[in-house]
Amino acid sequence: MKILVATSNRKKLRELMDILSPYGFELELPEETLEVEETGTTFLENAYLKARAYYQRYRLPTLAEDSGLVVPSLGGYPGIYSSRFHSIDFGGVEHGKDPDRANIKKLLRLMENVEDRRAYYYACVVLYIGDGGVFAEGRCEGAISREEKGSYGFGYDPVFIPEGYNKTMAELPPEEKNRISHRRRALTRLLEVLRWK
Amino acid sequence: MKILVATSNRKKLRELMDILSPYGFELELPEETLEVEETGTTFLENAYLKARAYYQRYRLPTLAEDSGLVVPSLGGYPGIYSSRFHSIDFGGVEHGKDPDRANIKKLLRLMENVEDRRAYYYACVVLYIGDGGVFAEGRCEGAISREEKGSYGFGYDPVFIPEGYNKTMAELPPEEKNRISHRRRALTRLLEVLRWK
Repeated sequence: MKILVATSNRKKLRELMDILSPYGFELELPEETLEVEETGTTFLENAYLKARAYYQRYRLPTLAEDSGLVVPSLGGYPGIYSSRFHSIDFGGVEHGKDPDRANIKKLLRLMENVEDRRAYYYACVVLYIGDGGVFAEGRCEGAISREEKGSYGFGYDPVFIPEGYNKTMAELPPEEKNRISHRRRALTRLLEVLRWK
Repeated sequence: MKILVATSNRKKLRELMDILSPYGFELELPEETLEVEETGTTFLENAYLKARAYYQRYRLPTLAEDSGLVVPSLGGYPGIYSSRFHSIDFGGVEHGKDPDRANIKKLLRLMENVEDRRAYYYACVVLYIGDGGVFAEGRCEGAISREEKGSYGFGYDPVFIPEGYNKTMAELPPEEKNRISHRRRALTRLLEVLRWK
């Protein structure tokens, strides 16, 4: 089964292949990256919009994902704005060359006096096959630390402490992160949904 | 396979049963109607929110649908606001005891000088099975008439002329409407997606 992956991120493709290849899925990157406006207000909607755009162009079943960090004490932010949190109109903007660092800086600043530090990573994956498809959700529960630690991973990993650990996600080697990640959980569930009758 | 239907509308349940029963699905209405806030900005999101709410309460695979009339020359309105179009802040509100009549009155008023009368009914169905599920979309293409005709159906049927007809949807007997309806198409596609591997 040939499946297109709606991403231009080769690291993400590698992660997806590791999980899906054993099940006979043959993943491919699109020849061309499409500019898809993520106008949705939720992860599900944005993953759907991306998958559908590539399907419409290439007429192949397409897998897309949208994910982010949800902090309930910040009303769910950064949420769908996770990757560009530093630049949006919520608690002031943060400048810097590296968006990941700027996002983290802003998050720690906003949470300086926040006691409830619970947070979770959330991923939604959509496999669109034309006029419909399959979707699945995955979470990784945890908390926001007081300072950055670790150099693995990306995004908010240096300040995200997964439940049951006393290290940040960025201190965990990739194999360990991939075992507990929201993305892994969403994909595992996607496979279960596909087997469901 | 027992499936809960996230609706309190017995007419809708009947329509869904007609289509799904031959495939071994046993549909049930929930014991209690839940107040689900439809905070989504799309049909997909609203159907998902409804299905998930019932799933969380009853722990049964749940089918929900969200549907409406889309008029491109009105920027997509009434869209997700179809059932309460008369009362929303778009082109003035319309009063009346019967929401269907008030909605139609407002639509005809807004389109009085509109040449491009193309419109389509759209339905999105979601079958949520916990942390994921299956979804499908269906359309019925057509145009908005200049005046109301017919007494079958509901919603915008008296002013919706399906493609290939010279009658409004409300002039078609239920069997005929159900053969071409957006809901039927979405459900048919849902069954195909379920069979897809």
